[in-house]
Amino acid sequence: MFGAAIVSSSLAIATSICFLFFSTPHKSFYHSLFLSSTFSTNESISNHLYTLTKRPHIAGSAANAEAAAYVLSTLESYDIRSHVRPYYTALTYPVRRSLTLATTVRDPPIELRLEQEIYEDDPYADVADQVTPTFHAFAKSGTAVGLAVYVNYGRVEDYSVLREMGVNVSGRVALARYGKIYRGDIVQNGYAAGAIGVVIFTDRKDYGGDGKWFPDEKWMPPSGVQVGSVYSGAGDPTTPGWASTEECERITDEEVEKSGDVPLIPSLPVSWESGDVVMRSIGGMVANEDWQGGEGAPVYRVGPGPGVLNLTYEGKQVISTIENVIGIIEGVEEPDRYVILGNHRDAWTFGAADPNSGTACLLEVAERLQKLQKKGWKPRRTIILCNWDAEEYGLIGSTEWVEENRQMLASRVVAYLNVDVAVSGAGFEASATPQLDELIIQAATQVQDPDNSSQTIYDSWISSTNSSLVGRLGGGGSDYAAFVQHIGVPSADLAFGGGYPVYHSMYDDFTWMKKFGDPLFQRHTAVASLWGLVALKLADEEILPFNYLFYALELQKSVEDLQGDVSGRDIKLAPLFKSIEELKKAAIEINDKKKSLKGRKGWTWTRKDNQNLVRELNDRLMMTERAFTDGEGLPGRLWYKHLIYAPSKYNDYGSKSFPGIDDTIEKAKSLNTADSWHSVQHQIWRVARAITQASLCLRGELK
Amino acid sequence: MFGAAIVSSSLAIATSICFLFFSTPHKSFYHSLFLSSTFSTNESISNHLYTLTKRPHIAGSAANAEAAAYVLSTLESYDIRSHVRPYYTALTYPVRRSLTLATTVRDPPIELRLEQEIYEDDPYADVADQVTPTFHAFAKSGTAVGLAVYVNYGRVEDYSVLREMGVNVSGRVALARYGKIYRGDIVQNGYAAGAIGVVIFTDRKDYGGDGKWFPDEKWMPPSGVQVGSVYSGAGDPTTPGWASTEECERITDEEVEKSGDVPLIPSLPVSWESGDVVMRSIGGMVANEDWQGGEGAPVYRVGPGPGVLNLTYEGKQVISTIENVIGIIEGVEEPDRYVILGNHRDAWTFGAADPNSGTACLLEVAERLQKLQKKGWKPRRTIILCNWDAEEYGLIGSTEWVEENRQMLASRVVAYLNVDVAVSGAGFEASATPQLDELIIQAATQVQDPDNSSQTIYDSWISSTNSSLVGRLGGGGSDYAAFVQHIGVPSADLAFGGGYPVYHSMYDDFTWMKKFGDPLFQRHTAVASLWGLVALKLADEEILPFNYLFYALELQKSVEDLQGDVSGRDIKLAPLFKSIEELKKAAIEINDKKKSLKGRKGWTWTRKDNQNLVRELNDRLMMTERAFTDGEGLPGRLWYKHLIYAPSKYNDYGSKSFPGIDDTIEKAKSLNTADSWHSVQHQIWRVARAITQASLCLRGELK
Repeated sequence: MFGAAIVSSSLAIATSICFLFFSTPHKSFYHSLFLSSTFSTNESISNHLYTLTKRPHIAGSAANAEAAAYVLSTLESYDIRSHVRPYYTALTYPVRRSLTLATTVRDPPIELRLEQEIYEDDPYADVADQVTPTFHAFAKSGTAVGLAVYVNYGRVEDYSVLREMGVNVSGRVALARYGKIYRGDIVQNGYAAGAIGVVIFTDRKDYGGDGKWFPDEKWMPPSGVQVGSVYSGAGDPTTPGWASTEECERITDEEVEKSGDVPLIPSLPVSWESGDVVMRSIGGMVANEDWQGGEGAPVYRVGPGPGVLNLTYEGKQVISTIENVIGIIEGVEEPDRYVILGNHRDAWTFGAADPNSGTACLLEVAERLQKLQKKGWKPRRTIILCNWDAEEYGLIGSTEWVEENRQMLASRVVAYLNVDVAVSGAGFEASATPQLDELIIQAATQVQDPDNSSQTIYDSWISSTNSSLVGRLGGGGSDYAAFVQHIGVPSADLAFGGGYPVYHSMYDDFTWMKKFGDPLFQRHTAVASLWGLVALKLADEEILPFNYLFYALELQKSVEDLQGDVSGRDIKLAPLFKSIEELKKAAIEINDKKKSLKGRKGWTWTRKDNQNLVRELNDRLMMTERAFTDGEGLPGRLWYKHLIYAPSKYNDYGSKSFPGIDDTIEKAKSLNTADSWHSVQHQIWRVARAITQASLCLRGELK
Repeated sequence: MFGAAIVSSSLAIATSICFLFFSTPHKSFYHSLFLSSTFSTNESISNHLYTLTKRPHIAGSAANAEAAAYVLSTLESYDIRSHVRPYYTALTYPVRRSLTLATTVRDPPIELRLEQEIYEDDPYADVADQVTPTFHAFAKSGTAVGLAVYVNYGRVEDYSVLREMGVNVSGRVALARYGKIYRGDIVQNGYAAGAIGVVIFTDRKDYGGDGKWFPDEKWMPPSGVQVGSVYSGAGDPTTPGWASTEECERITDEEVEKSGDVPLIPSLPVSWESGDVVMRSIGGMVANEDWQGGEGAPVYRVGPGPGVLNLTYEGKQVISTIENVIGIIEGVEEPDRYVILGNHRDAWTFGAADPNSGTACLLEVAERLQKLQKKGWKPRRTIILCNWDAEEYGLIGSTEWVEENRQMLASRVVAYLNVDVAVSGAGFEASATPQLDELIIQAATQVQDPDNSSQTIYDSWISSTNSSLVGRLGGGGSDYAAFVQHIGVPSADLAFGGGYPVYHSMYDDFTWMKKFGDPLFQRHTAVASLWGLVALKLADEEILPFNYLFYALELQKSVEDLQGDVSGRDIKLAPLFKSIEELKKAAIEINDKKKSLKGRKGWTWTRKDNQNLVRELNDRLMMTERAFTDGEGLPGRLWYKHLIYAPSKYNDYGSKSFPGIDDTIEKAKSLNTADSWHSVQHQIWRVARAITQASLCLRGELK
């Protein structure tokens, strides 16, 4: 009886196996289904976007809490287990602003306009008063009165030019134009040069059209102002490195100021209309040609003066409730491995492009995943959908969440996939940590180009660029920062259409998107398709689709770029080259191993062993990125643990390879002491050791 | 045909399953076998010890390389895949030493003897000249001439007593006696008090007998000297935080001195014979009663002088090759989860107790594991046997290895089990991170007490102590330090017989062990049994035998101990109590979960799912300890990442809970500024946050 019982129960097992194996379609079947036109509806995306952008919804506002509720209920309606994770973070709002310009001693000063204009038949005219007055978040409160100096984009090199021209910025108010670098660094660089206040205007050359603008054209209207944060850190500045939970430690405002991440002089953003008025009041030497304005602009001079700017900004800092919405689709085979999709929800104004084009795509992905589940699909790994809050203030929602869940995320996250402005026009763009390059490129060959139905996204993408396809994530531009730069998670950032003129102004609304950004919403659909497809591959493929050979080659290029910087110095790059060589070998080895494993797939009775083998291999692939982090962080920038990717010290948007090496080289070049060059060599060793840790990890080998 | 084929292949599967399940004994059968008397031979242990201790084998010596070869070939003879991992580390050796005492101006100074005496019929007389002259490793080279001051054990509180007595140590040579604290701290505390040199003697009261000594009794002979390191860090001081590989970055000697981990004044260890001579030359006030010597000793006075000590020490620092021997028994089900057993091999002299009693036990464990394998046992997880080098100099071999393999170990090690001096007498002692308490106690109930065959180790253990059974691993006393304090791995340290009088002298030889330490080698056998059993349970049990409730309770006790220190100050301990409460809940929850999983064990067709569940649960249990670490380390002590366990700042042997809080409290008490108490509160928050991370990890939950 006992033997017979075994046979019949094994028959039952066999039947189950049959059923599992012959009735369940392969994962790639579902992935194709995910992309099929029956699955996606442009209409649903456009409805989401319309609903999300009805009102301005700055972080901490009731309108943004309403938007959170919408996201939560939408995810729940797709049967996704979801919750809100609130944090209590320091945010600032404007209380009083004024900007006057005195051109002569006799005449009364001119009051410069700080309001954005409502146009005729603006459907959002009735809620325009809910738009927060234009300001810089985390700007220093105070008044600055001084001669105006024109500083171009306010970069370090622009101040060098001024120094060479003999123009002293000290004690003056700098007039900078937007673009090129992060606005927080425009203010910081001004402060470093001695400026007592900074006014940043939107130059028509960069953001305006040829005399036509929104609502007629996509360009920024004359009164349009780019609002934004001037804080250079990541996360709530009063809780550096830890989560802003209800009862938590907070550092004082003085300590925040000492951190160097918030400006110590007041600043204001202004329209090109106002900027133009100030510019015309500036005399002195004519600025260089590349400092000049566009057609119709006056001749730009550097000053100082004779125009005198009188700038007042008063803000209030309040602990505000922000809300991340988190939705979880549990993996059936590896529930403890996470593929995370993230996008933020808070907007400076209506946020049609930035960020709710991304939010609409996130909800579209969620809906399609529900449809897949209804067809029998279940992810191998857990998929987590995150809708962040307070990104605009300084990546606050995502950073607090990563800080709160640090240990868990560091152990379990396979990859983080960010979409911020999903769509602002045509043309696909992607940035990623390099082991994801191949996957993204491959996925792009499977999705149709929304602007040319005869080819794939990949085809258009490759024909649009002469340089490398995939950018890097060293900048502080969006919510991938905490994932990559703080805990070392392989990450990507996807978008259609790079920059756009009405960025961070009150004209970034549904009308703009419908007229110019994506009239048919097919670009949104394409982002959802690509984003979802990359996520599905990461969640479902038995062996993680990571290729570290791309990483090794990228690192090698970066070291070659360093050579010029240190030539003629007593600096050895050999440790870096050696460690990269090892990484290359390890990458080739594991790629071969993956191939051989894929070759002998199929159900055998040793499958459980295979499972362990696969898990071990995947863990190596996942953890290798972590090895690039060092708990002790970058010199003077503790929070930044990643030794390969971090923002440039002088431009938070700038992506740098080897930021620690780069920072110390900058310092050594200016100090030129033996000690300062010694620090460069130390940073080189640190990076080389991190790469060596990565190789060991990829090899799964103990020394 | 197809259906039929399935049936027959499933029959084959069923047969395999039958075979696997009904012919393979349960793991606990093998664990009992491991303990059985047929498996262990006292003789084999004694042979190993005899061979290992034939010659003195200080780190970096040819003799120690020979010992490494012996360990390697022995492991290989047990079919264990083994290799040597060398490092190239800074070690110091004595070049010139002298110590004279001037008692009057007229008489020539007395030359104090620095040699240890060979006794009649000493079987090791012919190799006695291979014993390194007595010295302090990493002592500062130099000469110090000054009035002698007696400073008792050289603790911070001893210097307070001297200050109260009005005795000025500044510019004097301190005479301290060994014991109570780490010798490196005796020198550091002397330096802090202004001493220009330190002589440390072995007081008969602490180490000598009643007129009889080795070879007649176990006590230290009059000429016996305790050699040892005075370096306070962990690992090669020239490669802080990274591995001393052949080509690697090294910091300069000046940078090492700046680190504060090596003394800045010379020191020498001396015998009680020499100490006695110096003591008799010291006048001044009579020392307190607890500062006095034993029977027959002169009255101890504090000085200063009139005796003048003239101390010269010259050492050389050389980059020496050290060798860790690593043996690996790969796990069949979870090869990527490691249970590590470690013991060091290098000895100041012969090292019969310290450390080769442990090495002999390690080899015994290896042999028994081979025997188990021959009976069909295979471990579920990988077991790694490590034989460290250069522990005596400052935990160098183990630390370099942990640093080199940091990322891999942090991802994969389940537990580290250390044995240093396995046996120096009777009486079991254990220290561990608290989640291992229950496991060790339970294992102790399964092994017979070697000194009382009528009861278990547990029975004797519990009856020998009034305080808690298991000690903690905050000290820097042995090779667990890098595992616990640098990367947060659950660890334990096991031994029979605590301290012993001939410690670190040339009398720690096989004769001493055979006569006094363990004449029948049954204590060695017991250590091997217990050590191996704990390892087997960790390697084989499906669910890791960790109980975090013990951790939570221990933490709570530690916070209660803190209350007195901060009472009356504006310090809140509430964040700590709150976080511990959460950990307690999480521990109870996971304990319940473990029970329920164990309840529904057995082979079912859903077993693969169970496997995933079990793995996820185990990963939580493993990673929770990591959550107590913080990459930014302790204030001013970057290498120490664990916020719960680290050495006390003033005694490297001392185990402190919350070292960061403790250090800042000490500082705040002496500075008594608002800022310094603010730092205490910050450290309290840090620890509370780490405990909260641990709870989340244990819960396997994302916020």
